[in-house]
Parts: sequence; structure tokens; C-alpha cells
Amino acid sequence: MVKKVHPKLEEPVEAENWTEGIEQPLALMEQIDEDFAAIAELANHSVISARQFSREQLIQLCRLSAKFETQQSFGQFPLTGKILISAFYEPSTRTRLSFESVWHRLGGDIISITDPSTTGIAKGESLKDVAEMMNHYGDVVVLRDSNERAIYEMLEALRIPIINAGNGTDEHPTQALADMYAIFKWRPELMSNEVSDDKKITIGIIGNPGRMRTVRSLLLFLSRISQAIKEVVIICNTTESFSQDQREELEAEGLNIRVSRELEPELPDIDVVYINAIAWVGNTYEEHGIEYKLSKSSPLKKGAIILHPLARGEELSTDLDDTEHNWYFAQARGAVFARMALMSSLVRF
Amino acid sequence: MVKKVHPKLEEPVEAENWTEGIEQPLALMEQIDEDFAAIAELANHSVISARQFSREQLIQLCRLSAKFETQQSFGQFPLTGKILISAFYEPSTRTRLSFESVWHRLGGDIISITDPSTTGIAKGESLKDVAEMMNHYGDVVVLRDSNERAIYEMLEALRIPIINAGNGTDEHPTQALADMYAIFKWRPELMSNEVSDDKKITIGIIGNPGRMRTVRSLLLFLSRISQAIKEVVIICNTTESFSQDQREELEAEGLNIRVSRELEPELPDIDVVYINAIAWVGNTYEEHGIEYKLSKSSPLKKGAIILHPLARGEELSTDLDDTEHNWYFAQARGAVFARMALMSSLVRF
Amino acid sequence: MVKKVHPKLEEPVEAENWTEGIEQPLALMEQIDEDFAAIAELANHSVISARQFSREQLIQLCRLSAKFETQQSFGQFPLTGKILISAFYEPSTRTRLSFESVWHRLGGDIISITDPSTTGIAKGESLKDVAEMMNHYGDVVVLRDSNERAIYEMLEALRIPIINAGNGTDEHPTQALADMYAIFKWRPELMSNEVSDDKKITIGIIGNPGRMRTVRSLLLFLSRISQAIKEVVIICNTTESFSQDQREELEAEGLNIRVSRELEPELPDIDVVYINAIAWVGNTYEEHGIEYKLSKSSPLKKGAIILHPLARGEELSTDLDDTEHNWYFAQARGAVFARMALMSSLVRF
Repeated sequence: MVKKVHPKLEEPVEAENWTEGIEQPLALMEQIDEDFAAIAELANHSVISARQFSREQLIQLCRLSAKFETQQSFGQFPLTGKILISAFYEPSTRTRLSFESVWHRLGGDIISITDPSTTGIAKGESLKDVAEMMNHYGDVVVLRDSNERAIYEMLEALRIPIINAGNGTDEHPTQALADMYAIFKWRPELMSNEVSDDKKITIGIIGNPGRMRTVRSLLLFLSRISQAIKEVVIICNTTESFSQDQREELEAEGLNIRVSRELEPELPDIDVVYINAIAWVGNTYEEHGIEYKLSKSSPLKKGAIILHPLARGEELSTDLDDTEHNWYFAQARGAVFARMALMSSLVRF
Repeated sequence: MVKKVHPKLEEPVEAENWTEGIEQPLALMEQIDEDFAAIAELANHSVISARQFSREQLIQLCRLSAKFETQQSFGQFPLTGKILISAFYEPSTRTRLSFESVWHRLGGDIISITDPSTTGIAKGESLKDVAEMMNHYGDVVVLRDSNERAIYEMLEALRIPIINAGNGTDEHPTQALADMYAIFKWRPELMSNEVSDDKKITIGIIGNPGRMRTVRSLLLFLSRISQAIKEVVIICNTTESFSQDQREELEAEGLNIRVSRELEPELPDIDVVYINAIAWVGNTYEEHGIEYKLSKSSPLKKGAIILHPLARGEELSTDLDDTEHNWYFAQARGAVFARMALMSSLVRF
Repeated sequence: MVKKVHPKLEEPVEAENWTEGIEQPLALMEQIDEDFAAIAELANHSVISARQFSREQLIQLCRLSAKFETQQSFGQFPLTGKILISAFYEPSTRTRLSFESVWHRLGGDIISITDPSTTGIAKGESLKDVAEMMNHYGDVVVLRDSNERAIYEMLEALRIPIINAGNGTDEHPTQALADMYAIFKWRPELMSNEVSDDKKITIGIIGNPGRMRTVRSLLLFLSRISQAIKEVVIICNTTESFSQDQREELEAEGLNIRVSRELEPELPDIDVVYINAIAWVGNTYEEHGIEYKLSKSSPLKKGAIILHPLARGEELSTDLDDTEHNWYFAQARGAVFARMALMSSLVRF
């Protein structure tokens, strides 16, 4: 009884057709002119907080992301000879692989620190000494650390840029950049200086805005395009949701924010649903809003898109994967080009 | 009292003379014509089971391996810009380094997942989601996993090729390819369509054919050249040796199989002795046939060769290392070229 | 209340001006002529002990280090296509990143073994078998192992060079090379065949010369330039300081050695202060001379330099960082170029 070869092995894998979905990044690029000066300002800057970016820099980075996405191949390798120090002190696969893949695609090399206990165990070695060491070995550092202040301490002695890949519960700016890139590909007109009322969007964020670094950075970026947003609805059922001054800062930038305890009544009016139930805190995770679930049977608005930084759990049902609402796969795919745009802008050639 | 420098340090290391042993791969290449079509069929296919390969593809892959082995250097780097996702969830050094070395030699880059617990810990993240992520970050995946079904589940969502580096107790096709390459270098005439009776070989396999993935894959490849094999003798002393339908499948392909509990009485008639006492199962290992040992005093047939995937234990004595029977070092060396042949065939440039 | 962006993020990072400090390596290069033959002898040699180097090879390696330090960029990548097997079995970040950074800067690729338990776990696999495996996968091995003899055992079967990155308490030759490079940049005249008495230096080494591999290798290198050294003062308060024959071997090479239990009375006469309180022994560390501390208030000689392999603890106060005595940062920076010089000399192109 000859066992058959698994049917999927009999055909070549269905490679991604690089032209599929190319109309979206092309449309984004046509929406605004290239402004290279905004990008040039970023050279050799560290990236820790979404606050660092002006609206112009944000939309130009997204335009540059689209430029990368529309290229069939990278004939040039701008990061040839450049070394990334990859320091992920919290468990991560997705974000780490994302950064490493991007760095390689652009021609660079990588050295890694995976176990922080091997770094300067000697009693009293300071983060400044670790930073001083990194100055000699690489051109850019990417750091994920459950200690929120670590990246700021290292700034004191670093002479190479450092990118925040998640510092405690504080921020995760590159993930938020990927989120914004997805939003702008979906509706390029949101990048305009002025957006008519009928085109403004309502964004629903399911989660705890004070405790989730992905949400914190995203809200800051959304405040840069407050003229395009009718309302941000935070779906959260804890009493304390925002951290101190967080809501005030966002409202001062022009964001209209409302908090609701209920998801289903809000959904029919929401254009962009952002959901993420897991917040990493050190080596464990907190669950936020785990009782809020999205599935095909949820009362989603027609044409609404769902964003999720992934990995997902039960809060986002797989039965949504084949619907028009699924923009979380496009978001993951676009994250690569968003990081390409950022990394290539940071490194001075 | 001046300490002397270790004598071995006073001379340069004896570099491998690349022309040494070159007559064997050259003879293999002369035995059959190149058939590029057979190789071209492999482009963009995943490799999970030895069943996927026809006899023609098997011998052409070995011919391509010989072509790599006879090249002094690789002036070209066909995998430039290509990324391998190296996912070894079971302990491995040998196989992992083998794949990584090959990928670098051909000009590619590598990103690694070494601790599966950092991948999608969020409750319920499916292997399909992990596969979807990998689609964005690399061009080929190589996976070793004690979960036999994992690689098949990932196939559902992967749009890039995946190579099985060992899935539970099921298969290890690239190791078996290296084994066949060693056999064909030793006796290129075994690659012919017809082999006269006096040239057919007897292969002795010491181990449990049902539980050892290296043996399972090897037996499948041997069944592709059943016309060149007089008999396969399985040396095994457990009652249950084959898994369900395993023996029937091989015999249906024309292999003559016999099982024996005794090693020494069989050895004088065996041309190729395959031995491997350790089968990894998760983070531990099972020992199979540990009571069967080979050493210089074993009644080996004159001209017989010994294959062992290494690492070895006491089942294979080091006193055989300097004898004509030692083909396990050549097998290890050839494994690099066998993987080069396979990897370069899979990736569509 | 809009939170401000951290001030350090508002400006680009202060990139290292590559011309800063360039006069020192330039002066070193002018001190002696290039003698390429001395370097050529090193091709394909393993590096385990500082004893392997003659005085001429030592100073030529430092001259080559200076050559690397004065290059603005590495237009060529001499290690293109070459693979380094990075095997760090003891915890390390600094030394490992140093080697990996250097190898990448010169264009090479790296494969790593980080967990020795995954290497040849099969009972009885010998280090010779591990070495045999490495012959197939790479061009150079770098090894750090708490087992002092491991590197010598592997020499038996290796056909590629191996570099000792620390073997138990025995030696750490590349660190000592970096130390010598710092000393020669500070005072190039010490490289001369003859050094007048008023120019000879006094070196103070705080630590246990028998138990600290960095010190052991450094003393051997210092014995190569004994004509430039007035005295080596070992600051150590244990009864047993030197290992057997260690002191005799150094004195036979012409080093004047004295041991003192007190630090402060010695400092005013010391030109080079070497301090390192931590000696790694396996997965833990021993502390040596932890009661000896250096700070701004120590009675340091004017113009004296402090060397420390880093990471540091409380034995070296940060208040010295901004003083003229701080040569430990320059030492760390120069270690990169010292390893470039060594690695590029070892690999036969």
C-alpha cells in the first residue's frame, strides 16, 4: 500500500505574486508628493517614541514604505557592510524576525544578544557601559526590554542609533508605523491636509490604552492626523484605562476620544477596528479585553478593516481571515516595508 | 622553564586538499548524463518526504551534488539576497550547522528561531499563523520539530518552500539524500537503469526501521533503486520493527527485505553497513540496537563501507576510522554538497 | 500636557568622528616598518596561546591593527565567502560580539553554537568528532570553553584554524593582543629594539596571575618586550599567586617581576595600571582582588593609563571615565582592530 505524497507537495508552492495588491501602495504614492527633506531629517536619530515624528515625517515614511513595496527586487543593497545589534531581552519571534529580515533584505549583517544575563553580569555594570560597547560593534541597535527606562539610559552613552522594539509597557513605535501604513494604504486620502467630514474615519481600539505599548504608540500617531479622524473609541472595561496625562496629550493634538465598555453596539460605526488582547510584560503577559471577541458574526460595518499586530489568540476568529475585513495579514506584510523605510532612513550611508 | 608551544600549533593546519577524493565525484558525473529537467521540476517545492523524489530526480540530485563537490570555489552566489528561516525546535547542532553553512556558501542570509516557546505563545496561535508570518520574512524554511504533523499543518498556509530537517520519528529526507550520495560515489554503476546480478549490493541497516527517521527516509530512497539491490537486511531485535504498511510499501517498489536479530553472522555478506543507535524523540533520545557494535574486529566484508549519520556513540568504534570501511566521514563531508544541490534546486532565482 | 521628546532624541546621535584619535595609530605605524613576512607566517595557524607569537609578530600585528584603525571604510571584504564557527560555551557577550562584528566587517558569514549540550550529546561523542564536523562547515572556529583542554583535543582533528577566546583559566590571547595594541598606541617607542632606561615603563597588574586568563596571556606578551619594561608589579594579596613555573618562564624571558600586597603605595610609580576583578570560571566567576579599587582619588601617576578588559564592576570607578587615565575605552575600541588584524592574517585567501 503505497502511501501517497501529500497533495500540497505535488505542486510548487504558490509563490506570492509580487504584483498582487500593488495598486494600493501605488495609490498611496500618488496621493502625496515625495518630500525627501522630511526623511533626511531622520538620519542618525534614535527612534524610541512615536512622539518624535511630525505628521509630515509620518506620511513620508509611509510613502517610502509604499515605494519599497512596489519594487520587484532590491537591486541595490544600501546597508551593505552595516551591522545591526539585535537585542531582544523579552521573548519575541515576530518582531525580531521582522527586523532581521528587513536588515538582511537591504544587505546588512546582524549580531545578536539573546540572553541579557550574559551581558555584563559583573556586579554594577551599567547600561552606559553596555552602550559604550555597542558603539564599537555595530551601526544600529534594536532593543526590546521589559525595563522601560533601559533604552533611555543607554541613550546617554550611545553614539549609534537605537530603535525601540518595545520598552516595557511604554511604546512600540515601529509596530504603530506598520499600523499607520496599513491605514494609509486602505484610504490614502487620509494623508491629505484637509479631509472632508464625510471622509473622516472612526477608529475603534479594543484594549487598555495605558498598559499596551502598541496602542500607546498608535494613539500618538493617530493624533498626528487628527484632522482625518472623526472619533477614536476606546473599548475597555477597566476603570483605569489611560495612564496619567495620556488622554490630555492626545486631546491637545486634536483627537476626539470616547471610552465605551461595550463592543457590539459600537462596531456598526467603526471603520478601523484595532484589536490586541495580549500585552507582554517581562516574561509573562497580561490579557486585556479578552472578553471582547471579533468573528464573522460580529456586526462589523461594511468595508470596515480589522488590524491586529499578531500573534492572535481567540479574540480574533479565523473565520474572518477570508473576509474583506481582514487587513491584519496585509498589515503584517506591510510591516516589512514600513521597517525597510525606517531603517534605510536612519542609517547614514 | 619555558613551556613549549603545542607541536600542532607550530605548523599551519593541514588544510583539506580540495582535489583529494575528487575522482569519486568525477566518476559519478561520468556515469550518467545531466538531466536538468528533472532538477527544474523541484523548483519551489517543499521537501518533507523521500517519497517525493523519483529515481531520476534522486540520481540527478546526486549528480548535481558531485558537481558542487568538484568545484574549487563558488565564484557565483546563487542565493544572494535570499533568506533562510532556520527553525530547529529539537536540539541539533550537526544538521543545523550543515544547512546554515550551505546557505551561506551559496550567498544567502539566515534568520533563526531557536526557542519555539517564543513563537506565538498567545494561546491558540496556530501553526498556520506562524506559517503566514514566515511568508513575509524569508524565502525558504527549514524545520526540525518533534511534532510529526507540524510541518504538514504549516504547509496549509506557507507560500515559500519548507524543508524537513526531521519531523518526530517520521522522516529526515536530506540526511538520506546524503547517504545515497555517499553510496553513489562509492559505486556509481548503481545509478544505472540495469545492474547485473553480480554487481547488485546487499545493504545492512542496524536499527529500528519504524522508529528512526533517518532509516525511514533512507529505505524509501533505496526503494527507488531496487533494481540495484540484492537485499536489504534489517538488523533489529525488537518484535515490532516496521511501522504499519512500511514494509509493504517498500516491497511493492521492489525491495527485497529480510530481518535478522544477529549482526555478526550477516556482516560477511553486507556491502553497505548503515548504523545509528540514537533516535531523537523530542528533547530526549531513544536507543535502538545499542547492543550491536562495529569495530575493527567485526567480520566486515572486504571493501564494505560503513555509513553513520553521526554523532556516534560506542556503537561505532574509532578504531575503524583509519580503515577502508570508513565512509562515514566522507558521508558527512558529502552531506554539505548534497544539501547545496537540494537548496539551489529549490530556490527559484 | 504634551510630553516632550527626550532631549537626546532631538539631535542626531553624535557619530564617532573617524578621524578622532587617528594620530595615535598613525604614530604607531610610523614607529616601525611593515614586515609582511612576519604576518604571512600566521596564515592558517590556530591561535591558542600568547606563547605562539614572537616579538616581531606581536608588533607587526599591532601595526596591522593600526592600519585597520586608520582606514575610513573597508572597501574590500577579504573574508567574503568565509564562514566563522562561533562556539561560545561560557557566557559571553562582549568577546563574542567583538569577534562576530569583526568577521562581518571583513565580509564573512557566521554560524553559531551557543548551547554545547546540543553538540554531540550522544554518549561518548568525542571532541575529535566535533572537530571533524567543523572541518566541513566553516573556515575558522572561535572557541570559549571552561574546559581548558578542550581546544587542544580539538586540534587533533581540526583542519581549519581555531582561535582561543578563553579556555578555562588558561589563556585569552586575543584580549591580550588588544591590551598590547593599546599600550603601543600610547607609547609607540616601546616597540623599538632598544628602549633607553628613562623610557622604560612600570606596569602594575591587579589580580591573580595564576588564575586569570587575561592576565596570563598579557604577561606572556609583556615578556616579549621585556627590554622596554622596567618592572612588572603584581598587586595581589593571596599567598598563591602564580601557577607552577609561570613566574620562572616570564623571568627567563627577561621580565622583572615583583609582587606587592598593597596598591596605593605602588600607584605613584606605575605607568600602566591593569585591573580586572572578575575571572570567569565556567558559569560562575571568581573575584580576585575585589578589595583593590581605582577611582579619581587614587594616587595615580600623572600620565598613567588604566586598562581594563571590561565588563567592570566597582573596582573601577566611573569617575575616572573623563580623565586622561581612561584608556579602557580606547582599549575596547582598539580590540576591534586588533581582532581584524589577527583574523585577516589567519585566513588564507
